[in-house]
Amino acid sequence: MSAADRVGLRHGAGGRAMRRLIEEVFLGLGGPVEDGVGLAAMDDGAAIRVGDQWVVMTTDSHVVHPRFFPGGDIGRLSISGCVNDLAMMGATEPLGLTCAVIIEEGFPREELERIRDSMQQACRESGANIVTGDTKVMGKGEVDGIVLNTAGFAVTRRVVTDAGLRAGDKLIVTGAIGDHGMAVMTRRHGLDIEGDLRSDVAPINRLVRAALDAGGDDVVAMKDPTRGGVASVLHEFAEKGKVGVVVDEQSLPVHAEVRAAGEMLGIDPLVVANEGKAVIGVRAGSAEKVLAALRAHPLGREAAIIGAAVAERPGQVIVDTGFGRRLLAEIEGEPLPRIC
Amino acid sequence: MSAADRVGLRHGAGGRAMRRLIEEVFLGLGGPVEDGVGLAAMDDGAAIRVGDQWVVMTTDSHVVHPRFFPGGDIGRLSISGCVNDLAMMGATEPLGLTCAVIIEEGFPREELERIRDSMQQACRESGANIVTGDTKVMGKGEVDGIVLNTAGFAVTRRVVTDAGLRAGDKLIVTGAIGDHGMAVMTRRHGLDIEGDLRSDVAPINRLVRAALDAGGDDVVAMKDPTRGGVASVLHEFAEKGKVGVVVDEQSLPVHAEVRAAGEMLGIDPLVVANEGKAVIGVRAGSAEKVLAALRAHPLGREAAIIGAAVAERPGQVIVDTGFGRRLLAEIEGEPLPRIC
Ligand SMILES: Nc1ncnc2c1ncn2[C@@H]1O[C@H](COP(=O)(O)OP(=O)(O)OP(=O)(O)O)[C@@H](O)[C@H]1O
Ligand SMILES: Nc1ncnc2c1ncn2[C@@H]1O[C@H](COP(=O)(O)OP(=O)(O)OP(=O)(O)O)[C@@H](O)[C@H]1O
Ligand SMILES: [Mg+2]
Ligand SMILES: [Mg+2]
Ligand SMILES: [Mg+2]
Ligand SMILES: [Mg+2]
Ligand SMILES: [Mg+2]
Ligand SMILES: [Mg+2]
Repeated sequence: MSAADRVGLRHGAGGRAMRRLIEEVFLGLGGPVEDGVGLAAMDDGAAIRVGDQWVVMTTDSHVVHPRFFPGGDIGRLSISGCVNDLAMMGATEPLGLTCAVIIEEGFPREELERIRDSMQQACRESGANIVTGDTKVMGKGEVDGIVLNTAGFAVTRRVVTDAGLRAGDKLIVTGAIGDHGMAVMTRRHGLDIEGDLRSDVAPINRLVRAALDAGGDDVVAMKDPTRGGVASVLHEFAEKGKVGVVVDEQSLPVHAEVRAAGEMLGIDPLVVANEGKAVIGVRAGSAEKVLAALRAHPLGREAAIIGAAVAERPGQVIVDTGFGRRLLAEIEGEPLPRIC
Repeated sequence: MSAADRVGLRHGAGGRAMRRLIEEVFLGLGGPVEDGVGLAAMDDGAAIRVGDQWVVMTTDSHVVHPRFFPGGDIGRLSISGCVNDLAMMGATEPLGLTCAVIIEEGFPREELERIRDSMQQACRESGANIVTGDTKVMGKGEVDGIVLNTAGFAVTRRVVTDAGLRAGDKLIVTGAIGDHGMAVMTRRHGLDIEGDLRSDVAPINRLVRAALDAGGDDVVAMKDPTRGGVASVLHEFAEKGKVGVVVDEQSLPVHAEVRAAGEMLGIDPLVVANEGKAVIGVRAGSAEKVLAALRAHPLGREAAIIGAAVAERPGQVIVDTGFGRRLLAEIEGEPLPRIC
């Protein structure tokens, strides 16, 4: 069997290879969804019409290694990832989360309880509630420690997709980029970076609510830049909205430690995973209002307008470096596996 | 660290050990659910009031080994398990399912597609639709092949819990018991049993709908006898309903091959997993009507009344062998791991 006939690490890395695998293998599983968002949209979650509102649903598994990293752990990640994907669809009040754990035989009880505690803490911060779950145990050597899956649902009267950009719209990122991926990466490789490199992992549903309240219908696209980073989000926005996207590189909020680590490793923070950020597309007239609302929230102090949608070059992402412009290529995948 | 401080295979085996682990570690994650079914109920899923109906939600991970077994595979299992848990809450029309896969690096594409195909087949049989998903890849040796998680939601105007039994109610099983667990077990151990030992894995939401239509409000308790088998369901019914449960052993539908395998292995079919069955508690006056409706459906032809709830010995399960009565002890766990 050739390598092409087998699943590789790149297929889980949030870039083009993963998208292709999903399209080729899984998209056929989803039937049409009337007046809602189904599998074919490949958005952060689904939205199914029920009466006069939508039930939004999302799922993510978490396999991050190491399980505890600067700024968070797999438990906090599992709740934040779920709450944030719901919020990205416009559903900022989670109604119920599921908690499915798969544990390796011999896993320490005490560590399980620490993971549980940080799930609980993230539930508190977001107002989420776990309503059902599942527990499986695999034999020693059959799974590496623990794997978590969370699914969630919420209802909303307005669904925000990732396909709503029009030329002229502004793009806002809710804070500094690349913290999560760089924190996991440097911890895993035992790199010694100066300063405080910490994951941004956090539920941001309340921050997103502030943006939606400020911008109303002028908030037209949202996506959390997890695997594949901000670059992947911008490519999806551009492709689905059929617009070009121009990013102003100088305006990108990047912590000095992340910049340093990126230079050391030769990795652009634009392609590195975040777990407590959103990229938001807003009609130009409301951009400053939304920005101000984000900055007024503790999790949005470093929010910035980073670019705009343009009519030229639909489907492509252009980086304006201040000295010139370059095309941002879509990556095959995040530079390292098991990031989340 | 002592064994008691570590998670063991028994903690995933659907018996007392698992229930204790969940109660001690995870129940604290669930806040109170008003006018619905939350984590504390430990039912097949949760039910959250939304307007004049309930949104039902459930999750299960699947780690079965081998992935293909007589009568089914991990893909069919993942859809059936999810659809059936929704149905056990009274929600027989799934509105959306999630599909989260965790794949080991090097997994054959062709096998992934076969699994996808049987998920699709089970979706067709049940009317279910996958609306969102997630794909992670773990390195070689970090997970044994593939793990699936499905979560689902549906709405219903009437929730059926597993706590509704009253003395006098009849207990119905929708068909022969022990097929799934015995099929997996004999395949795994390479046992040579005569006859056709096949898993019963199937979505039974439409069968359950027939029972609900026939019995109406007289259907008062439902649970699918997965890990831990019919015995575990009866113990939960007895404990939660605060009734005694008497099972008429002679009336239990058991295929000859399952009986033979059980005798060979020294395992009572009552404690063996099923993946296409339900145990239903019905007010006595409607029992025959519900039984007839079940038997009229292709998946319910072997349905039988297997016992009744009584006022004596609340919380306990008594087996009437025809020659005398014995207490059925609650098992620590299913006799083998990775059954589903
Ligand atoms: N196995 C699968 N089956 C069906 N759909 C899938 C599957 N895996 C991914 N998808 C769909 O593909 C799209 C991309 O999934 P992805 O997991 O990258 O989104 P995300 O959850 O927002 O990102 P992340 O997992 O990095 O947090 C989503 O619309 C998702 O529903
Ligand atoms: N990790 C967990 N966190 C929260 N609740 C859990 C967890 N594991 C199990 N539960 C809850 O415990 C109860 C029993 O779970 P269990 O998985 O045995 O039910 P089931 O899905 O009906 O059975 P099976 O998994 O064998 O199909 C359910 O109410 C479930 O929500
Ligand atoms: Mg997302
Ligand atoms: Mg996600
Ligand atoms: Mg379960
Ligand atoms: Mg169940
Ligand atoms: Mg189940
Ligand atoms: Mg995902």
